[in-house]
Amino acid sequence: MTRNLPTSAARIDEDISALADITEPDRPYTRRAFTPMFLKGREWVAQRFEAAGLTTHIDAAGNLIGSRKGRKPGLGTIMLGSHSDTVPEGGRYDGIAGVSAALEVARALADNGMELDHDLEIIDFLAEEVSIFGVSCVGSRGITGTRPEAWLDRQSEGVTLANAIAEIGGNTAAQITRNDIAAFLELHIEQGPVLESENLDIGVVTAIAGITRIEIVVEGRADHAGTTPMGSRKDALSTAAWIALAVERFATDLAAGEFHFAATVGEFRMEPNAANVVPARVTMLIDARAERRTDMEHFLAQLHDGVAGIAAQTGVTVPEPRVLSDNMPTPCDAGVLASLDVACDATGARHRRMASGAGHDTAWMARITKAAMIFVPCVEGRSHTPEESANAEDIALGAAVLLDAVRRLDKD
Amino acid sequence: MTRNLPTSAARIDEDISALADITEPDRPYTRRAFTPMFLKGREWVAQRFEAAGLTTHIDAAGNLIGSRKGRKPGLGTIMLGSHSDTVPEGGRYDGIAGVSAALEVARALADNGMELDHDLEIIDFLAEEVSIFGVSCVGSRGITGTRPEAWLDRQSEGVTLANAIAEIGGNTAAQITRNDIAAFLELHIEQGPVLESENLDIGVVTAIAGITRIEIVVEGRADHAGTTPMGSRKDALSTAAWIALAVERFATDLAAGEFHFAATVGEFRMEPNAANVVPARVTMLIDARAERRTDMEHFLAQLHDGVAGIAAQTGVTVPEPRVLSDNMPTPCDAGVLASLDVACDATGARHRRMASGAGHDTAWMARITKAAMIFVPCVEGRSHTPEESANAEDIALGAAVLLDAVRRLDKD
Ligand SMILES: NC(=O)NCCC(=O)O
Ligand SMILES: NC(=O)NCCC(=O)O
Repeated sequence: MTRNLPTSAARIDEDISALADITEPDRPYTRRAFTPMFLKGREWVAQRFEAAGLTTHIDAAGNLIGSRKGRKPGLGTIMLGSHSDTVPEGGRYDGIAGVSAALEVARALADNGMELDHDLEIIDFLAEEVSIFGVSCVGSRGITGTRPEAWLDRQSEGVTLANAIAEIGGNTAAQITRNDIAAFLELHIEQGPVLESENLDIGVVTAIAGITRIEIVVEGRADHAGTTPMGSRKDALSTAAWIALAVERFATDLAAGEFHFAATVGEFRMEPNAANVVPARVTMLIDARAERRTDMEHFLAQLHDGVAGIAAQTGVTVPEPRVLSDNMPTPCDAGVLASLDVACDATGARHRRMASGAGHDTAWMARITKAAMIFVPCVEGRSHTPEESANAEDIALGAAVLLDAVRRLDKD
Repeated sequence: MTRNLPTSAARIDEDISALADITEPDRPYTRRAFTPMFLKGREWVAQRFEAAGLTTHIDAAGNLIGSRKGRKPGLGTIMLGSHSDTVPEGGRYDGIAGVSAALEVARALADNGMELDHDLEIIDFLAEEVSIFGVSCVGSRGITGTRPEAWLDRQSEGVTLANAIAEIGGNTAAQITRNDIAAFLELHIEQGPVLESENLDIGVVTAIAGITRIEIVVEGRADHAGTTPMGSRKDALSTAAWIALAVERFATDLAAGEFHFAATVGEFRMEPNAANVVPARVTMLIDARAERRTDMEHFLAQLHDGVAGIAAQTGVTVPEPRVLSDNMPTPCDAGVLASLDVACDATGARHRRMASGAGHDTAWMARITKAAMIFVPCVEGRSHTPEESANAEDIALGAAVLLDAVRRLDKD
């Protein structure tokens, strides 16, 4: 389908390709925040911001911002953006697609001589991905008053996070919670297969799922694998296997409902992990995601009962599952969602509403402003891998949706 | 029960305790073959051999041998023994109990002025446990012509196995397959719970189980744990969990028969093992033990079909299980078994016949002579752990059974 869009796929492709090329030509998808490659990439992003007529600065939280004054001082700021950092080994679109789309909105406005009433800011959030300091969403948490003080003392190779932020131009001593933002919008690749499989252009994100991390330790007993009769064992692995299958079953049942739910045993560590020893202990980490808090509570209750039932059946000790972290779902702003639906229709984008199972800066921005986000398709739903791929045309269409929504929000 | 035994629990206790104390007082149960602690321990074992009137030497394969001539030259040698090396972190009785019991037979013979027709050798086999060179039963394979040539080039910290054997007094260039051994007997702790739970003194070992090691690799797909719908996943962990449970079920069914069977998933490695990534690959190592070869063949066939069925059900790829090593069961000598049964009855030991699920030097000795072994109980069946424990009285009773059997075999 060829649409007559105000946004340019070619420019977006140039943003993304050139950034990949200059940062690390032979392995172009690793730009972990704070590393030299990230700084080199950011310098280039800043040049692209300036070339689009934006005034750039690094804010106190370490975010790169390109701004343009609006016609009516005091109305506040419409902010658009995402992040330019990556996880190790990928991907090429995660984050930067949203920075490029936001920049493309600014370029399209300039192309067409359109001015906004609100101030406009394009943001490249610092360290959305889990960084070398072990924490994520550093920039968005910084400007929303949700960055834990204790994080600042975290070290990586002898440098504290506070110093690392200062080195790239921030200042963690300054008061930096923003209270002037009228609305925030983010475009991101879906990182899942739904849009592609349903042949849609845009996902209008209703909520960012809450993420709960649960640790389960199965306490069996190390015994000689050759001599211990099958009936006399306390094999931690088989109890852990039953638990992993129960997690999958509970999650599959909940996912059959209307709201997004997923649970995964992503980490599984066995001890002593020796060929001829009956497994003594398994430590499992469950990552559970719920669009709706009641689903998460239901899952936790099922897990509690399920684990107790399995332990009673196998005779292997399993202490109560331990909730390591528990973040609530973040609904997107209903008014902004309505604007995005209308913008999709106006732009000719086939769209659906859907939840985000992944965490995003938008979840933090929702603490201080009307926030929402849109997804564009990515190939086979693959993400956080060098194979991650998306289409510049799809991103340009997403940018056109953002542009349309921004013009509507500007008049609210 | 107090028995009037020709063997001394006190001397056995002194052997074992003193050896533990001199080798490593604060962590007394680690004597890995070739390490300084092992050599120090062996020096003391040699002194105990000599104090019992034995002539000691290190044979070409690196075994420590204490010998005494018999009355009738040319009848050959009755050999008794086990090993003094340990696994890392234990145990206190595995191996050395059998060396001490064999030595106690020699001491009891001397105490009572009893001479044998056959030559007698008490042996401390080199490196029964998996050694720092990654291989086990080095000494017993050495004198039975079953030590692979390629082993000699294996290195540990820059030293080859050949040189390490030479350093302790062996000579790997010499032809060392023994053809003069009339019978071999070994006492070992059971390393399982059967004797203790049935309140028996002695297990007369019918066979040493064959050991087969099988690798299964489950090939799922790494996907974002937050965004990938439950129904679109190829989760390697849940397929691996079904396989682990099938292994346990097949083994439990086979173990319900008359013959020893056990199978264990001792190693289980997951990739990428990251909290928010759907498991992409699981590598499992199965250790299976069968007293009867047909049971192992049945297990391998069930595993083949079971894995294919599970893969078909879950849609995750699982290549054919790969047999990494496959050793046949070793039956003990029927005549020696009969002598051991009679010896138990004569000594007043409550006994049963049973298979050994663990590998032992006896399995190699059976290649060149009439070989058999007996088990004594160990506390809760625990082994290869600092908690491993056995009773000096039980070992002394076992030594008395060996003594009685030796005297019978001597007249055969
Ligand atoms: N968007 C994204 O991949 N965030 C990483 C955190 C997560 O959702 O697991
Ligand atoms: N006896 C013993 O523990 N041998 C170690 C080899 C094995 O059976 O796994």
